[in-house]
Amino acid sequence: MSDRKIVKPVAIGGFPEWLPEQKLVEQRMLDIIREEFERFGFGPIETPAVERKEVLAAKGVVEKEIYALARLSAGEGEDAATEMALHFDLTVPLARYVAQHFNALVFPFRRYQMQKVWRGERPQAGRFREFYQCDIDVIGSGTLSLLNDAEMPLVIHGIFSRIGIGRFLIRLNNRKILQGFLAHLGLPPERGPEALRVVDALDKIGRDKVLAELAARAGLAADQAAALVDFVTATPSLDALADMADEPVFRQGVAELAEVIEGVRDFGLPDAAWTVDLSIARGLDYYTGTVYETVLVDNPEIGSICSGGRYDDLAGTFTKQALPGVGISIGLTRLLSRLFDAGLLRADSKTPTQVLVTVMDSALRSECLALAAELRAAGLNTELYTQDRKLGDQIKYADRKGIPVAAILGEAEVRDGTVMLKALRTGDQATYRRDAAPGAARALLG
Amino acid sequence: MSDRKIVKPVAIGGFPEWLPEQKLVEQRMLDIIREEFERFGFGPIETPAVERKEVLAAKGVVEKEIYALARLSAGEGEDAATEMALHFDLTVPLARYVAQHFNALVFPFRRYQMQKVWRGERPQAGRFREFYQCDIDVIGSGTLSLLNDAEMPLVIHGIFSRIGIGRFLIRLNNRKILQGFLAHLGLPPERGPEALRVVDALDKIGRDKVLAELAARAGLAADQAAALVDFVTATPSLDALADMADEPVFRQGVAELAEVIEGVRDFGLPDAAWTVDLSIARGLDYYTGTVYETVLVDNPEIGSICSGGRYDDLAGTFTKQALPGVGISIGLTRLLSRLFDAGLLRADSKTPTQVLVTVMDSALRSECLALAAELRAAGLNTELYTQDRKLGDQIKYADRKGIPVAAILGEAEVRDGTVMLKALRTGDQATYRRDAAPGAARALLG
Repeated sequence: MSDRKIVKPVAIGGFPEWLPEQKLVEQRMLDIIREEFERFGFGPIETPAVERKEVLAAKGVVEKEIYALARLSAGEGEDAATEMALHFDLTVPLARYVAQHFNALVFPFRRYQMQKVWRGERPQAGRFREFYQCDIDVIGSGTLSLLNDAEMPLVIHGIFSRIGIGRFLIRLNNRKILQGFLAHLGLPPERGPEALRVVDALDKIGRDKVLAELAARAGLAADQAAALVDFVTATPSLDALADMADEPVFRQGVAELAEVIEGVRDFGLPDAAWTVDLSIARGLDYYTGTVYETVLVDNPEIGSICSGGRYDDLAGTFTKQALPGVGISIGLTRLLSRLFDAGLLRADSKTPTQVLVTVMDSALRSECLALAAELRAAGLNTELYTQDRKLGDQIKYADRKGIPVAAILGEAEVRDGTVMLKALRTGDQATYRRDAAPGAARALLG
Repeated sequence: MSDRKIVKPVAIGGFPEWLPEQKLVEQRMLDIIREEFERFGFGPIETPAVERKEVLAAKGVVEKEIYALARLSAGEGEDAATEMALHFDLTVPLARYVAQHFNALVFPFRRYQMQKVWRGERPQAGRFREFYQCDIDVIGSGTLSLLNDAEMPLVIHGIFSRIGIGRFLIRLNNRKILQGFLAHLGLPPERGPEALRVVDALDKIGRDKVLAELAARAGLAADQAAALVDFVTATPSLDALADMADEPVFRQGVAELAEVIEGVRDFGLPDAAWTVDLSIARGLDYYTGTVYETVLVDNPEIGSICSGGRYDDLAGTFTKQALPGVGISIGLTRLLSRLFDAGLLRADSKTPTQVLVTVMDSALRSECLALAAELRAAGLNTELYTQDRKLGDQIKYADRKGIPVAAILGEAEVRDGTVMLKALRTGDQATYRRDAAPGAARALLG
């Protein structure tokens, strides 16, 4: 073995890998997100990482961004290529899942999905080729009430209130309003999607560039472009908004937005948590009504931390069933990476261990093992120090890993039926009756 | 859209996909496994789904079983092929991770990893091409105490006691004992691994076939084969075992086993939960000491539900550091699939929702939304029925999804400040004060 060639272990660009202390933070976020999804009655599904190529291609994304699978080698007469490729989002798999299992599902179908997705992009700062997406969607069979649109901001609020990364603002809009206003401006419908993609970048590229690109890319005249930008940056009341254009689709968009806002208020979402923002369009043409974005008020440079919207037709590629839906998505890996970079998240513990049971004296080992079992039975995450080292080294180990409490058993403690507990952060230590040790340890954890 | 070609959504062989009610069962198992891993002080890590091909090839597995990645198409002058392939287990990634991040880790390094892995096998019953593995390992830097070996059966016991799939038995052995006994029989060392692979199949193929294969595949004489099979099917005391061969490696194996057993007892593992079984060898040559298997006492046909062992050298391919370790692994997808097939797991609820808030009268809608918010604030997983249907249909919906409680608000209830709660399983219903509704709902959940 010793003369074997060493393969140098190096990272692959675009594939993030967290250290244990960072992974604990990610795990905590995944747990909060999941708990809140479930609090609102969303149930888990998980689809395979792969789909048939024709399923993914049906969506019409850039083929270069899709990773196909081939066996590393094939037997004689076999083809190493496969019919499969890695999914690049969770929406296409959801559409395929709902169409395939339609008869086994109960509608409205409320699902969450928290999985890795893969995109064959060139790696660059903040772009990942493998990342977590955390999605919820409600899918109706035939119809779907706007109450579901009203509920999404509540879920967003539930999650980001608990994650604790500062103030956030949920921006609401309805694409029909934008579409209707473009019609009102006299823009031919086929130029609408491109115009909305340009408007959606307002936050990033600013007013002047948007005006220029509306002309160059979407063919708007200068006055049309100016009217559009003035419109999307205004903050009219709903009544005033209703009077700003007279197209049917515009009126429908305003009515939908009003209904969603009424629901949002009835659900009790605090006013400070949300706002109507007519400039939110979302890049995807996929969305047909309500759209959402969420930004950190004090760190807008991080961009939208949770986005989504309403669509008329989830799975037209896979079924003739009408499946309208509404959903939101958190790109967790990207968010986490930016939060780490911005110093908004602390990763200080390297382990979920709450108590380290030290072993000072091998003659007392069996007592230490029994103590570890007692602490675990009481529900405490407990690690036994297993190497033959001095007590000081064992305490140092606890300290380096961020374990908050050490339990120490010496001859005196075993004789007296007691345990010494040391709080690593303060250095305080005290002796407790053995049967009171789990409770005392829990109190030290705070 | 309507004249677009429909892509038929069909399953890909070997890639399991659960319905929502099954996924809930899987999720519950993942949660229990994770909680028990953490109870013993194991912390999470997650590695990318892909590794560089040379990292995976370093292990020397069958290349046909590895899926490589290539972009579905490439730009001009670009190569669609990549340097990457999907990992086929979590051990190679762990070895690469520990070697790569050696200086950032604290040793002994205790990690769990619960991820999908991929194997390009031909799909067949019970064989999966994508499946969950749930692994823990303790990795020492230089040395690692046998106490860690003693702790693994405790973790197994913690998990399967909670999962509730019947009685189970953890079988312990030490490969040095088998190796030593083969030396005692005079078998050349190079034939040992093949002989142990054959012995490991004793449970599956029976004594006669093992005798035949020991001769045919490992070159044992008839008397050697018989002596070996007699040895591994015997159940001697540790003292008696110690006298059965006089090879140094045999003596070391017996001493290690004795120490592990002492630890297992000190940790308080019930005697009925484990046994020494000298026939356990595990297929992998990788293991060098303690080995584990776990079987369901009343359903042995399901095979080992959790296996593992001790190894001297985790990452010799990637580093010159000596990294001994011990670990166990649960092949969750395979286990779940077999448990579903055997009817040992019930999947009856399609949702984590605990309470469905019905909406009988659109005039009372805002009260219903407020009630949903109150129940959620009290920590109850609460779904609002959002479609415009009769109450009976809403109750039917709750029933079909397996939601245990429905909350009903009519005019009388709103006037009186009360809520009616209906337990779907029994059909019982009663009226509660609005502020007592969360507590009452929780009581109905049992």
